Amino acid sequence: MEKQFLIEGYRAVNQAGESGALKLSAIIIESGAGYSPSDFEFEASRPDIFEAGSGDFQKLADTQSSQGVIAVAQIPDELQDYPNADGTGTILALDDISDPGNMGSIYRTAAWYGVQLILLGENCVDLYNPKVVRSTAGATGSIPVKSGSMDEVLTELNSEGWHPVLMDLNPGAGPVSELSGRQNVILVIGNEAHGISEALKNKFESVYIPGRPAEVESLNAAVSAGIAMHVLQSEKITAGKL
Amino acid sequence: MEKQFLIEGYRAVNQAGESGALKLSAIIIESGAGYSPSDFEFEASRPDIFEAGSGDFQKLADTQSSQGVIAVAQIPDELQDYPNADGTGTILALDDISDPGNMGSIYRTAAWYGVQLILLGENCVDLYNPKVVRSTAGATGSIPVKSGSMDEVLTELNSEGWHPVLMDLNPGAGPVSELSGRQNVILVIGNEAHGISEALKNKFESVYIPGRPAEVESLNAAVSAGIAMHVLQSEKITAGKL
Repeated sequence: MEKQFLIEGYRAVNQAGESGALKLSAIIIESGAGYSPSDFEFEASRPDIFEAGSGDFQKLADTQSSQGVIAVAQIPDELQDYPNADGTGTILALDDISDPGNMGSIYRTAAWYGVQLILLGENCVDLYNPKVVRSTAGATGSIPVKSGSMDEVLTELNSEGWHPVLMDLNPGAGPVSELSGRQNVILVIGNEAHGISEALKNKFESVYIPGRPAEVESLNAAVSAGIAMHVLQSEKITAGKL
Repeated sequence: MEKQFLIEGYRAVNQAGESGALKLSAIIIESGAGYSPSDFEFEASRPDIFEAGSGDFQKLADTQSSQGVIAVAQIPDELQDYPNADGTGTILALDDISDPGNMGSIYRTAAWYGVQLILLGENCVDLYNPKVVRSTAGATGSIPVKSGSMDEVLTELNSEGWHPVLMDLNPGAGPVSELSGRQNVILVIGNEAHGISEALKNKFESVYIPGRPAEVESLNAAVSAGIAMHVLQSEKITAGKL
């Protein structure tokens, strides 16, 4: 049997059903929550729909945010082969993101900016953790994913024409504006507290986000990742290239 | 007596003590957590330091993240007069931010980008909620704040030369890149689920963040706010004007 995860709440379940990016095995409706099976008729998928009493439903639900509807979805297979560095794509690499809200928010931003692959380092929080799934706002499953040793993967992709760029404030780092419109970039985001891991530091090009470190030490990881993705992708999106 | 709030964890307490932006009334150390009063000798402030047994300490602490140290800080007074629209500053207006993590993250970003005032609409989550304070990463207290009816405040400031700009995707909205380097802007961020409130919609200029709405409906509010602040402030920071 495939591995499964839960999607909670009407909006997220509906988005997943409509998009067809995920295979939904089942939808469970809480009795008395005001939903009927006809609320979940999608063109892209036809999951089985079950009704459950409140007691049983609450045992399944992770939080209040299920609001009477849960979908059981299959965890998609990871990507097998790396994409070619053919000048069109951008890869996002998450070295060690530990906060579920950050992970979900970064994934959501990556979907918005048309990132073609997300690399997950070995210490990242589980992408199918319920809080991560909620924080993607329905985007879970829309971007191919590959997990592994970040150091090895980046070295391999670098030899194939990809350019890893670390978000890391060090003496050699350039301002993030240097990323504007660049191609074949792997944007690498470090851990919330410790930044880029020692194994990667100084091994690749680095950029930083100019700001006022006297006021606050750094930006939140999801905010930094969002700013960098904006700088990298916004021109391409506006030009209709993504 | 002044209203108080709690700052939890060594890093946040230390940052607050060092910065002097907040008045710390007391620091409470958990017995056996490995801290001594000499760990909290700041130039900027000299709070009383108490030691508490684990049982008492845990009653005070909101979460695990207190890690043996809590500071009691005074909630700063709100700003009385609005700043002049003299061409140097940027104001951030939070219409209705309800998630504590988003609120803290937005405040942290505003500190990074040198925002000079934060306007808080009447339905925003409490800025001194423990989760908000944790999410500011020590920046709480570093930016003047003023609360009130967003519609009234924006109308008044607009008549005094400030330019409210709504983050809102509507047919008349321009791309966020139009904000680059602009002065006297009040950047207005709406609610996480409902966006800009009806009372404000179409009343002021709007900008949107170009992306792929077919993949995901929108960006997270803290990420959008971060991208807009970057576009507004980054040039000024790089030019040494902030």
